[in-house]
Amino acid sequence: MKNYDVIIIGGSAAGMVTALTGKSNYPDKSFLIIRKEKDAFVPCGIPYIFGTLKTSEQNIMPVQGLLKAGIEFKQGEVIGINRNEKTIKTNDGLELKYEKLVFATGSTPYLPTWLKGYNLKNVFTIPKDKIYLDEVKEKLNNFNKIVIIGAGFIGVELSDELNKAGKRVTLIEKLPSILGKAFDSEIAKEGEKILIEKGIKLLTNTSVKEIKGFEKTSGVILENGEEVEADAVILSMGYKPNTELALKSGFELNKFGAIKVDSYLRTEDTDIFAVGDCSAKVDFITRRYTPIMLASTAASEARLVGLNLFSFSTVRAFIGTIAIFSTVIGDYAFASAGITEEEAKKSNFDVITGVFEGIDKHPGTLPNTKKQIVKLISTKDAEVIIGGEIIGGESIGELINVIGIAIQCRMTVTELYMAQIGTHPLLTSAPTNYPLIKAAEKILLKV
Amino acid sequence: MKNYDVIIIGGSAAGMVTALTGKSNYPDKSFLIIRKEKDAFVPCGIPYIFGTLKTSEQNIMPVQGLLKAGIEFKQGEVIGINRNEKTIKTNDGLELKYEKLVFATGSTPYLPTWLKGYNLKNVFTIPKDKIYLDEVKEKLNNFNKIVIIGAGFIGVELSDELNKAGKRVTLIEKLPSILGKAFDSEIAKEGEKILIEKGIKLLTNTSVKEIKGFEKTSGVILENGEEVEADAVILSMGYKPNTELALKSGFELNKFGAIKVDSYLRTEDTDIFAVGDCSAKVDFITRRYTPIMLASTAASEARLVGLNLFSFSTVRAFIGTIAIFSTVIGDYAFASAGITEEEAKKSNFDVITGVFEGIDKHPGTLPNTKKQIVKLISTKDAEVIIGGEIIGGESIGELINVIGIAIQCRMTVTELYMAQIGTHPLLTSAPTNYPLIKAAEKILLKV
Repeated sequence: MKNYDVIIIGGSAAGMVTALTGKSNYPDKSFLIIRKEKDAFVPCGIPYIFGTLKTSEQNIMPVQGLLKAGIEFKQGEVIGINRNEKTIKTNDGLELKYEKLVFATGSTPYLPTWLKGYNLKNVFTIPKDKIYLDEVKEKLNNFNKIVIIGAGFIGVELSDELNKAGKRVTLIEKLPSILGKAFDSEIAKEGEKILIEKGIKLLTNTSVKEIKGFEKTSGVILENGEEVEADAVILSMGYKPNTELALKSGFELNKFGAIKVDSYLRTEDTDIFAVGDCSAKVDFITRRYTPIMLASTAASEARLVGLNLFSFSTVRAFIGTIAIFSTVIGDYAFASAGITEEEAKKSNFDVITGVFEGIDKHPGTLPNTKKQIVKLISTKDAEVIIGGEIIGGESIGELINVIGIAIQCRMTVTELYMAQIGTHPLLTSAPTNYPLIKAAEKILLKV
Repeated sequence: MKNYDVIIIGGSAAGMVTALTGKSNYPDKSFLIIRKEKDAFVPCGIPYIFGTLKTSEQNIMPVQGLLKAGIEFKQGEVIGINRNEKTIKTNDGLELKYEKLVFATGSTPYLPTWLKGYNLKNVFTIPKDKIYLDEVKEKLNNFNKIVIIGAGFIGVELSDELNKAGKRVTLIEKLPSILGKAFDSEIAKEGEKILIEKGIKLLTNTSVKEIKGFEKTSGVILENGEEVEADAVILSMGYKPNTELALKSGFELNKFGAIKVDSYLRTEDTDIFAVGDCSAKVDFITRRYTPIMLASTAASEARLVGLNLFSFSTVRAFIGTIAIFSTVIGDYAFASAGITEEEAKKSNFDVITGVFEGIDKHPGTLPNTKKQIVKLISTKDAEVIIGGEIIGGESIGELINVIGIAIQCRMTVTELYMAQIGTHPLLTSAPTNYPLIKAAEKILLKV
């Protein structure tokens, strides 16, 4: 029986980063990644294969990097784990021994089996599966009217891309606003305006009663009885952890179906780790389980596991999940970090917020200057920053990481307000009117 | 005699932010700004009035914001301070009483009076003076061959702008590389390559012996005897604090000619503050005086003084100057924060560095993807991050602030390596290959 020091089940962001980090820290150990799919997709790049990217091949994370680093790769499915013998079994009958085992099995689209018509022809989901998505893309070429159910990041980005590609898109969301996990409603509203301006039909506060059709879909029926025609329906109603194997192998799952882990991302079996979407997440602020799934969070967990595989240190414990989201809607970027005001209040936090609208270059007479809105959320008395939401140009993809680091360092609002910030006419807002600092000021003036 | 709670001498970034912050924190106090110039220029926007901006009017910081906030404004020059009586005297004979006084007198170009020909016609400096610069701009219209002496930020940005405007530009620097305060030579070299590709004649390691000409300049003579023809010469050899008034009024200056202050930016007279370029700066890392002059540093100091004017708190003490620079050369942005490797070694620090070259979008097949190089500098054993240098697209204007905040929070390299970072295909590098994190990894692998 072949023997590996580390076997990693799954090879998307979480699995690859675990393997690469592990191998560079423990070069003498042998690593094997087992993955179902031949090609792994850049997960957050998926919406862009429908427009901005020419082909889905452009969205592949090449396996060569792994091989070059000395990591073995096998395409296949793990169908059983023997925790006493420390062995796994694959679908092609292979049995392998491990010293350390890592679940990096990811997530699959949530499928609303309770919704009539969910399994009709031309009703699609968005799994991280190149072969399936190539088919979806192919089919959509022949369709015009697309209904997308669920206005999370995938639903919104897909709407924007398909609209750019000339489709008539209807986006349906049961909650009052889009991107509710990441943005308070007044910020989300700005994104909604852009979608509507672009010609997307947006229905918030709207539930779907039925996907209509005989054999193939012809539309959706809303709860109020209205009907929206559709050549195709895309279900983007969230993802669920891939944890059947873990459950079958006796591991405990949390209420979101994710594998329970400690601060070192270890399961109850200290030689078995879980990282990424399949692994339970405790929110940094609320200290409760959260169903956040992000490649960037996965990569951060994976670095930690890669470091810790054979040598632990309390310094290297995970501090809790800080969701940092960003996206692009039309010509504007939207980003958030930490907790929203609405979510904080639901969790019984006393919060203060500060909002400032400025611009992202200076003077504002420079070409391509865009407005920039920063909303900051702190606990009462401006103790610490717990969240931030931004609208602006491309630079906010990194500006949100300034807030992310501030949250992770438990910076007070006063510290952020006095922070030294680099600015440049062509790259950022003015030092005198930097929206992040001015939003902090708004909080301080309320205290 | 008219009486003000706060009088601020100077009204560029430092003065304006002190006044605005002060007034919002102490709304009942009366504030007066006295400034020599009618119009204040966005200081870092100055190079861009020579090309990217259509008129210099577009680079004015309007005074309306001050007036609207209830701050009084007077154009004039303060010619005397009576510290016992707590009064000032202006050039038009006015005498005013203050409770708190703030020096925000800025800086003026260093003038090499030892250099033969420095005062010839068509030899210019770059002061923050709209009237003078409008004249320079007007005159340059009629000239083709421009020699710029000094390759700091102003020299480099001006070279790039004048080159874009079709001039034949020669940029001369006596040090081995450009932008030496902000970048190690291997990073600066990348900027030099771009300048040269664009057609700028760059002479590093080159000293000027004389500016040649009779009445007006006709060129410069280098130390090796060679001659470079010039219709105009621009001296961008640095700035010196405007501190004649302070010196005359008995205040102590440091070796760079800046007003000595404590951690609250107070002079030895606890009712008199100094902020911005005229105020002495202690480096956050080396804890020694540094001649850094940046509008962003000035704004940060000014916020602190605005908060502290009438009410002190040890929480609100200045932590030391962290220079955060950014600029654009050709199609690439360059940014740095903290201390360079070369400077750290000169100050006897044991350092470790990590360099990673990646891309700024993901997958790299997306339009407008640019390379991104991050160099990180930490003290030995990866204790804390003390510096960072980046080359990349526009987003690094904010990415450098991620490093800036990490330095200010005294983040360890391990903490940064495990940090949670937000990523998006269209906005940032990949979570699996984020250059800032990978540079941290390079350091950890060396420990």
